[in-house]
Amino acid sequence: MVFQSATYGKVLVLDGVIQLTERDECAYQEMITHLPLCSIPNPKKVLVIGGGDGGVLREVARHSSVEHIDICEIDKMVVDVSKEHFPDVAAGYEDPRVTLHVGDGVEFLKAAQEGSYDAVIVDSSDPIGPAQELFEKPFFESVAKALRPGGVMCTQAESIWLHMHIIEGIVENCRQVFKCSVNYSWTTVPTYPSGVIGFMLCSTEGPEVDFKNPINPIDVKENQSKSTIPLKFYNQEIHAAAFCLPSFAKKVIESKAEN
Amino acid sequence: MVFQSATYGKVLVLDGVIQLTERDECAYQEMITHLPLCSIPNPKKVLVIGGGDGGVLREVARHSSVEHIDICEIDKMVVDVSKEHFPDVAAGYEDPRVTLHVGDGVEFLKAAQEGSYDAVIVDSSDPIGPAQELFEKPFFESVAKALRPGGVMCTQAESIWLHMHIIEGIVENCRQVFKCSVNYSWTTVPTYPSGVIGFMLCSTEGPEVDFKNPINPIDVKENQSKSTIPLKFYNQEIHAAAFCLPSFAKKVIESKAEN
Repeated sequence: MVFQSATYGKVLVLDGVIQLTERDECAYQEMITHLPLCSIPNPKKVLVIGGGDGGVLREVARHSSVEHIDICEIDKMVVDVSKEHFPDVAAGYEDPRVTLHVGDGVEFLKAAQEGSYDAVIVDSSDPIGPAQELFEKPFFESVAKALRPGGVMCTQAESIWLHMHIIEGIVENCRQVFKCSVNYSWTTVPTYPSGVIGFMLCSTEGPEVDFKNPINPIDVKENQSKSTIPLKFYNQEIHAAAFCLPSFAKKVIESKAEN
Repeated sequence: MVFQSATYGKVLVLDGVIQLTERDECAYQEMITHLPLCSIPNPKKVLVIGGGDGGVLREVARHSSVEHIDICEIDKMVVDVSKEHFPDVAAGYEDPRVTLHVGDGVEFLKAAQEGSYDAVIVDSSDPIGPAQELFEKPFFESVAKALRPGGVMCTQAESIWLHMHIIEGIVENCRQVFKCSVNYSWTTVPTYPSGVIGFMLCSTEGPEVDFKNPINPIDVKENQSKSTIPLKFYNQEIHAAAFCLPSFAKKVIESKAEN
């Protein structure tokens, strides 16, 4: 469903759940993309699982080091509806580095060449329903296998206000696969439940990745000289701040991440 | 109005606007209180304007250096309803250092002794309606006068997602009164419009206050040895992170704060 709202502009709804609005999509798309990509030097090959609206592609495309972007979206209608009603979001598909694969992300990753991606971004819907598999250990194992050593994963990881028990499970699964490089971050997205959304950031064994101190600062380096629209939300400060958690969440997540 | 919600516990509504819920009040009360009080050494005398529910008092009372807490609330019914329905919030009134003044905060401040407070916390409702005066220059001038040199003010300052034009006005007013020590911070409160709320933090001329680097870290120093319930939200990291703004807000606020 697509509708026009009074305050947030056009809204995209999938299975009864708000996926994005024109007003606040910048926060989600910019954070889920630049948190991982600004944490590694010169990302070249990026895979997006889900993200059919194209917003993550638009953000990945800001990185001039990137040579190839695969996207695997299971629902072709999301792509088509986004192109029709959200041209500023679907703009990501216009980048010549993008290849769209319509199909199951789980299967796509199983078939992916080992160690071939610098980053995998999982822009999925909620873990209850069709996307459930994308939060389980076998899926994270496929992601880890598809990543080069020191490659990074960023996955949508629910709300600290509403879903701590789900988050605990995700952290636990990630910890088993990615060992100690398991980091939870969050940002404000007003139209998501409770107004926040989290991201799990993990890296594979190899060159160490310090997610909290971005080394590839797109907001300074590339954004100003581009013809693309400027970043609305992301900057280096908000990147670092995203990893600071309220005490109630910190306590639970850190105990799970370190055990 | 008070009602029981499915997800957020009991909810307090004033003039049709949600004031607090049991689930997320911790974020607001802890941040509006500890952002200012953890930024100065040994706060002794604190004034709360509004805040009739008692939550800010509860948080101020965590600071063992504090000797006296004045609160000026215009609406006695808020106090009574909070004591009846939100005992964990109204708990703030039990502290013997608290003196409740029922009346107009603007008048109270005009009559206050010059230079007598270390901190003034303005826990008001929105600037459209009865609380409008609390966001205007004459009010901020009264606050500044009531503060000691190097004293601090923290005031509720709306949502960066919805009220940038209002925020611009508040920043402008504060800048004229408090000169260069004008800082905007924000936090997540799911049940407030857009899920975020901002705070203006200003200090008067005198010993310099670096709001972004708290020097009076209550989460480490005092919280563990107290019989009060532990902090749920606030910690030193989230204090510093609260001053990191999304680019769209940073641009507007910094230009206003520096002009």
